[in-house]
Amino acid sequence: MPNPTAAMLVIGDEILSGRTRDANMHFLAGQLTEAGIDLREMRVVSDDPAAIQCAVRALSDAYGYVFTSGGIGPTHDDITADNIAAAFNVPIDVRADARAILATHYDRTGLVMNAARLRMARIPEGASLIDNPVSAAPGFILRNVYVMAGVPAIFEAMVASVLPTLTGGAPLTSRNLTIHRGEGDIAAPLADLAARYPTLSFGSYPFQRDGAYGTNVVIRGQDAGAVEAALADLVTLAG
Amino acid sequence: MPNPTAAMLVIGDEILSGRTRDANMHFLAGQLTEAGIDLREMRVVSDDPAAIQCAVRALSDAYGYVFTSGGIGPTHDDITADNIAAAFNVPIDVRADARAILATHYDRTGLVMNAARLRMARIPEGASLIDNPVSAAPGFILRNVYVMAGVPAIFEAMVASVLPTLTGGAPLTSRNLTIHRGEGDIAAPLADLAARYPTLSFGSYPFQRDGAYGTNVVIRGQDAGAVEAALADLVTLAG
Repeated sequence: MPNPTAAMLVIGDEILSGRTRDANMHFLAGQLTEAGIDLREMRVVSDDPAAIQCAVRALSDAYGYVFTSGGIGPTHDDITADNIAAAFNVPIDVRADARAILATHYDRTGLVMNAARLRMARIPEGASLIDNPVSAAPGFILRNVYVMAGVPAIFEAMVASVLPTLTGGAPLTSRNLTIHRGEGDIAAPLADLAARYPTLSFGSYPFQRDGAYGTNVVIRGQDAGAVEAALADLVTLAG
Repeated sequence: MPNPTAAMLVIGDEILSGRTRDANMHFLAGQLTEAGIDLREMRVVSDDPAAIQCAVRALSDAYGYVFTSGGIGPTHDDITADNIAAAFNVPIDVRADARAILATHYDRTGLVMNAARLRMARIPEGASLIDNPVSAAPGFILRNVYVMAGVPAIFEAMVASVLPTLTGGAPLTSRNLTIHRGEGDIAAPLADLAARYPTLSFGSYPFQRDGAYGTNVVIRGQDAGAVEAALADLVTLAG
């Protein structure tokens, strides 16, 4: 059975301007691979209603899971929740349970619950909440879309809390071999090998070190036995 | 006049699996911002013909420039050039000038020009070449799509060679202020400020340091005078 599919949507002008280097894409990619969920696409869009709504709709239609990061804070540029709601034509308003979570957190930390912070309790109708152990303001799940914070520590905590609830597939087995020959030298036998193992994926990544060419070959697949057999063939071939 | 728009397309299973952390998106984002080109969207897709063709067509239609990275090497998983050609219904074959560049390079370095390496001279009809000072195999430009290597050193060299040929806009002026108050405390006055300067963008980025909350506010825009005026207002507001 094929693994479930997923996409990621990063929302934030600060990534597109080069001000901030995104860290959440690489983190999520590794986590999903370990869980046996096949991440097929990632997109970064700006803090723009049409861009967010178009991307959410397209990815939600095309993939089993969609994970978003960014744009769920208290300021005017945090427009993710409203646009997820709009993308699915669902109403959005302050919800009692989300408000209670924030109120408890602010009571404890001495912060004031003002109108801006109350915006973080706006949750689209029909969504369920994602716990935020760092700064309380929850994420949420609407249909197949998981809406999470952009701050890496919070994003990672939210991923940790939702991952066990996802239906994973067979985790991939991955083996790699470093071959001290240029990619162009091994391309033909590698293509033959890949053709003989159609269920596996063969990645080839060239490098240059101390003036010499080399290639890292990565063999991946759900069938661990096939991966080991292909690796043995590759060792012979690289001989 | 609005700045020209751009999108980036990263092609590579190794990014989606979490094996490799992409570095080219952050690099290009910074370079385009400096050049006054408005990067609106980035996508990462797998080494899959349909995924590459769909994304290239969509981005080429929607934005002024499209920059791709990855998938132009000699191995079986390097399928970018063929799929860019297919996306635009253009034939592709080994081209004499690209072949000559490779032949000169291999003569000098003592590598063999075999069938696999010759694949890197396959260029879609009507494209112009992008110089590769690192490992010779050229990138190319087809319509508004700039096809470049995934290896960061080569990608960066290719970007450096094409950037001066692009039509840039007014570079953005960017100023930022660190405010030692939580994002939720300044959200309302910040929204008012943003409303008074509709041509500027106001980004708000929360942080927590030594247990205290703070916010970095970034003001950006083409009108340097307006940016400075807004910054002065922000300093007063943050008082």
